[in-house]
Amino acid sequence: MNSKEIPYKIYLTEEEMPKNWYNLRADMKIKPAPLVNPGTLKPMTAEELGGVFCDELVKQELDNDTKYYPIPDEIRNFYKMYRPSPLVRAYCLEKALGTPAKIYYKFEGNNTSGSHKLNSAIAQAYYAKKQGLVGVTTETGAGQWGTALSMACAYLGLDCKVYMVKVSYEQKPFRREVMRTYGASVTPSPSMDTEVGRNILKEFPGTGGSLGCAISEAVEVAVTNPGYRYVLGSVLNQVLLHQSVIGEEAKIAMDKYGIQPDVVIGCAGGGSNLGGLIAPFMGEKLRGEADYQIIAVEPASCPSFTRGKFAYDFCDTGMICPLAKMYTLGSGFMPSPIHAGGLRFHGMSPVLSQLYHDGYMEARTVEQTAVFEAATQFARTEGILPAPESSHAIRAAIDEALKCKETGEEKTILFGLTGTGYFDMVAYEKFNNKEMTDYIPTDADLEVGLSKLPPQPEF
Amino acid sequence: MNSKEIPYKIYLTEEEMPKNWYNLRADMKIKPAPLVNPGTLKPMTAEELGGVFCDELVKQELDNDTKYYPIPDEIRNFYKMYRPSPLVRAYCLEKALGTPAKIYYKFEGNNTSGSHKLNSAIAQAYYAKKQGLVGVTTETGAGQWGTALSMACAYLGLDCKVYMVKVSYEQKPFRREVMRTYGASVTPSPSMDTEVGRNILKEFPGTGGSLGCAISEAVEVAVTNPGYRYVLGSVLNQVLLHQSVIGEEAKIAMDKYGIQPDVVIGCAGGGSNLGGLIAPFMGEKLRGEADYQIIAVEPASCPSFTRGKFAYDFCDTGMICPLAKMYTLGSGFMPSPIHAGGLRFHGMSPVLSQLYHDGYMEARTVEQTAVFEAATQFARTEGILPAPESSHAIRAAIDEALKCKETGEEKTILFGLTGTGYFDMVAYEKFNNKEMTDYIPTDADLEVGLSKLPPQPEF
Repeated sequence: MNSKEIPYKIYLTEEEMPKNWYNLRADMKIKPAPLVNPGTLKPMTAEELGGVFCDELVKQELDNDTKYYPIPDEIRNFYKMYRPSPLVRAYCLEKALGTPAKIYYKFEGNNTSGSHKLNSAIAQAYYAKKQGLVGVTTETGAGQWGTALSMACAYLGLDCKVYMVKVSYEQKPFRREVMRTYGASVTPSPSMDTEVGRNILKEFPGTGGSLGCAISEAVEVAVTNPGYRYVLGSVLNQVLLHQSVIGEEAKIAMDKYGIQPDVVIGCAGGGSNLGGLIAPFMGEKLRGEADYQIIAVEPASCPSFTRGKFAYDFCDTGMICPLAKMYTLGSGFMPSPIHAGGLRFHGMSPVLSQLYHDGYMEARTVEQTAVFEAATQFARTEGILPAPESSHAIRAAIDEALKCKETGEEKTILFGLTGTGYFDMVAYEKFNNKEMTDYIPTDADLEVGLSKLPPQPEF
Repeated sequence: MNSKEIPYKIYLTEEEMPKNWYNLRADMKIKPAPLVNPGTLKPMTAEELGGVFCDELVKQELDNDTKYYPIPDEIRNFYKMYRPSPLVRAYCLEKALGTPAKIYYKFEGNNTSGSHKLNSAIAQAYYAKKQGLVGVTTETGAGQWGTALSMACAYLGLDCKVYMVKVSYEQKPFRREVMRTYGASVTPSPSMDTEVGRNILKEFPGTGGSLGCAISEAVEVAVTNPGYRYVLGSVLNQVLLHQSVIGEEAKIAMDKYGIQPDVVIGCAGGGSNLGGLIAPFMGEKLRGEADYQIIAVEPASCPSFTRGKFAYDFCDTGMICPLAKMYTLGSGFMPSPIHAGGLRFHGMSPVLSQLYHDGYMEARTVEQTAVFEAATQFARTEGILPAPESSHAIRAAIDEALKCKETGEEKTILFGLTGTGYFDMVAYEKFNNKEMTDYIPTDADLEVGLSKLPPQPEF
């Protein structure tokens, strides 16, 4: 098909939007390893998980077999408020690069949460509401997930309690106010609300908090308050299931115009966006129907895929959550303070970890200043000011396009533009002032976390 | 037509996007009064204006006759990066209000500038580039117009010098950094760059600056630097011409689905959005082809339409710009510090002023806290966190819909949602904390500005 016929932005109609979430696990020959109880080292049962998560979400979490989950009408209607998201042909970026490559990006930032997080937030809130719950609890660092969940809960009339890492609460008041505008209660963590919070405050009175501590508080509030459950924005299988709407939509739009990507690129923190974007493409690959080069891009400062171990580990630094088998740097790993807060996670989705382990995708690292160079070039040519997280994928896409310029190959590149950087201007300011630095951990730095993995289950 | 068939969001295809800007003045029986030289009190000539503005824009500014201006391909291609903007059916808001009214909004906030300002910024930058200029200068208060212009200039490779009111420069570093990311130079005003700036700093060393002073500096830099011209984001006829793309697009989308609005509502500061949104509807009204209730909504604290005089006045508080005949509170009027910075302007577009004077539209005022109540309700039901300026239109749209609830009328309401409030969270924080206040000037307050109008030309 002549590229002249491809519009700048492909929007599906509401009828063309995906009607099902796709469960990638159904097509995996080797399934992701189950979550494990850290006490017994046995797989977590639905009953054990049901104390923390909603029943329907537990079912989704454990389901390795059902290929398609129909998206409930109520969720589809909510999706219609901000979806379909555009599949954009990056004509202007291509021209600026002088590349023969054709670059497409799936843009998930056109909603107030500013990212793809809303796709799973509404699903999790919906099932909580359907179960007759009063509300949900969660933690948030930079605030993207907390914002998305607040929006979903406001829509459904559910209470939403967000535990926000104290230092972010104080330094990022804008995200906090967005959540409050949506009616969420936002508590700086550690707080006096919980036993775990009180203990930490007793021991470290001046602490700025941590994501691990905020998770522990949110879980404690969920399990000790009748009518509440805990929800999480990444890593879990259910989150990847909901996020498959990204890839499904991209695939339908590309099929409509006869476009076949050669390379699919996503940034990788806990894996929510990457897993969602690649889902249908990886499905075809697993079923042997098509081949794609699939690239996960992670920060050089937090290289779980490329320098981590494939082993059981805690998902939280507080070590109260179940163990997951994944590529991990160890729950004790302290990532450097890069600005892509969403990619500063020591582990990786068990689904993606298994696929990477089995050779279905590759991974590479990029450094922070190179990421912001790409972000700035993208903003100036394509107009959208990208989130630092998303800009990892932009960096890799530009690098691939520049390779094509050298070789003359006309590859079709698809990448995930997960969100906007409007709440990340402190990071851009550092870059604009040439005050940004890169962080690459030494092997000794990594050994701190890697040497303290928990006992490994045997089954 | 059954409302069930109307999608949540109507997106035109790129082929369906407007190919022309519509010059409302061509259909006005009584044309807007010409700009006047404050020294001679004679209409400004093209030659006089050409020292400040680009030649093609001067032509557009003075043209009361040409009905349609073809949109140049280069500008249409830029528009395709963020347009068509969605026409949204506010199903969720309607349901929350329990109104039989059908509410639609044209959403202009899905681009990094966060507002409709980009529609004219790219046009003005394009004509500057085409004239072979090196760059453009402008002023910005809150930063929305400066951001839009920076984006347009980055795309075209034009230099962009923004004079930003000093107090905003220091208190709103995020907008400043967006502009810098797009390569603009942003200078706090008053500055030592200009004679006017140096004089003000000598007299008031600690001043936080004002929009009037920033305009004066931007104009001085434009006229004293070869290859530069000054550009402005509102009030001018040319700006309304470019912004007609908003209304044209809305009209095409509504026609496609057989929707006929009864009421068209827009917020009014300098008139750039209101004039653009209503253009094709007002055109039909002027030509006697259809009738619409057209409502301008302004802040109670800055009521130029409702409590101002229809007279010649300066557009800037520095009194160096041409005189325009408009509804004005006097260039010496100091509006209260409400959070809708874009609506704190003492005057109003001459085109809209004439239409209001001639009875083609009505105007009403709303108070700040009522505006934020509407903004919050809108955010929670429709998902989008609106700009304080846009929320003036939301307030009026909700009020109209609630009237329909009482009367049972099934009116179709269209309003302009000009932008997002992501950079206005300080305002939302005040509202969330119940610390927001209202300001209604007394007649004596207004007399300060109204008593000092310049000598009126006679012709």
